[in-house]
Amino acid sequence: MKISGNTRLIAHLGWPTENFKAPMIYNPWFAAQNVDVKVVPMGVRPQAYATFVPALFEMTNLVGALVTMPHKVVTAGLVQQLSPTAAIAGACNAIRRETDGSLTGDMFDGDGFVQGILRKGFVPENARALVVGCGGVGSAIAASLAAAGVPALTLFDMQESSAQALAMRLRRHYPTLEVTLMQNDPQGHTLVVNATPMGMSPGDPLPLDVGRLTPGTFVGEVVMSQTWTPFLQAAMARDCQVQRGTDMLFEMIPAYLRFFGLPVATPEQLRQRAEIGT
Amino acid sequence: MKISGNTRLIAHLGWPTENFKAPMIYNPWFAAQNVDVKVVPMGVRPQAYATFVPALFEMTNLVGALVTMPHKVVTAGLVQQLSPTAAIAGACNAIRRETDGSLTGDMFDGDGFVQGILRKGFVPENARALVVGCGGVGSAIAASLAAAGVPALTLFDMQESSAQALAMRLRRHYPTLEVTLMQNDPQGHTLVVNATPMGMSPGDPLPLDVGRLTPGTFVGEVVMSQTWTPFLQAAMARDCQVQRGTDMLFEMIPAYLRFFGLPVATPEQLRQRAEIGT
Repeated sequence: MKISGNTRLIAHLGWPTENFKAPMIYNPWFAAQNVDVKVVPMGVRPQAYATFVPALFEMTNLVGALVTMPHKVVTAGLVQQLSPTAAIAGACNAIRRETDGSLTGDMFDGDGFVQGILRKGFVPENARALVVGCGGVGSAIAASLAAAGVPALTLFDMQESSAQALAMRLRRHYPTLEVTLMQNDPQGHTLVVNATPMGMSPGDPLPLDVGRLTPGTFVGEVVMSQTWTPFLQAAMARDCQVQRGTDMLFEMIPAYLRFFGLPVATPEQLRQRAEIGT
Repeated sequence: MKISGNTRLIAHLGWPTENFKAPMIYNPWFAAQNVDVKVVPMGVRPQAYATFVPALFEMTNLVGALVTMPHKVVTAGLVQQLSPTAAIAGACNAIRRETDGSLTGDMFDGDGFVQGILRKGFVPENARALVVGCGGVGSAIAASLAAAGVPALTLFDMQESSAQALAMRLRRHYPTLEVTLMQNDPQGHTLVVNATPMGMSPGDPLPLDVGRLTPGTFVGEVVMSQTWTPFLQAAMARDCQVQRGTDMLFEMIPAYLRFFGLPVATPEQLRQRAEIGT
């Protein structure tokens, strides 16, 4: 499917763009379905983002936008409607324009993460989950874990105020949820999530003390710049069950496609065609 | 060459986008050269354009913009620097960002047209040219014909003020140029150009009285939505030498590529790879 004047675009917004994976996953699926849509990277610096988004949505052939770092939190303040998940997460990774011209934001990171670990056998009931990193993606994962029925969440962030704000939003929606703040010891948890950017650059410190991981714990990662981050490698060495960042990516795409009104694929169908190592 | 996070974009700005040809000409050339750049259509309505352009140029992976109808004239007022040709034409079909963040506009329609007819044997010396349509593209062609040494130009536009304004700009730069205003009789001209949109839609009237075309006259067309417009067909029936709108398109691309700092192709190299009927 070649680019022509009939091609519609999905803007992939973030900065820097070099580690973007979505074009290589969506575009082969669209081509296989004869859907004349292309995901294209658009690098936008934080200081330009707030004026870029409304201008972008003036495009007549725009399907919508995928939003990634560092813009997910800011996006929540730039749209006119937020889904409940996006409201709890305080962040968006998807924007579409409604027929009245208003923008709606949604957040699929958390659903993608939870879909993936459920498929791997994680049982939410009686689970205790540690989420390290309470930015956009960490908040979304916490919100989706609560929605899936996880009764106890431990939240950690280098900025304590981020963890506290997330805890407040969670408790408002899930009054019976047990929230523990500012612990990052994995012991005693059945699920441990790295939702920080640590692991994107070589030489990053590990996000938590992997020596305290109990064998059998589910360990999930949001970093996608490498398939097996040092954190996941350490978790595997301790016989933990792991989920890669790219797993989350594939699992959330069906929700994105529904959001944009495009033909929906299963994660397996996407994975088979993807032009990246999976 | 697949779209990835390293792909840089050339925005093809216009509205509507359906008849755009540039993606199918540039993109195969870039792919053949392993240049990770894609031309993508961006439909922008006139009322949104003035805010869209500065926002677009905040993109970190933007090479520049190709500008087409209806935005060429407005673009001249949105950039900080204009090339001499763009200044005479009062229109731009190319924008790039300089290292200081300012925008430069240039105009290659006219050069493309003139390169094409020169290659077909047109001799500018002692020529008399009739240009029907004094909008962005017509003005650019008139400017480039004057620059190529054509001593006499006849200008016609449904809006007389457009023809008058162009004549004034031309005379300022080419004081010895003989300019005749508001005649559209092709007789007595060695080159006749349709620079109006007439021919884009089925049932459009012909831009001038083809019965008055002298055999052997060079007849050029800017409409690209069909390869052989009724105007060109009528000209061929009268044994005129013709140049199609798409010829102009191919001839101007080397100048565009130089402007964007990308590997330069000849019109032939572009034509061989193009994914459109040529």
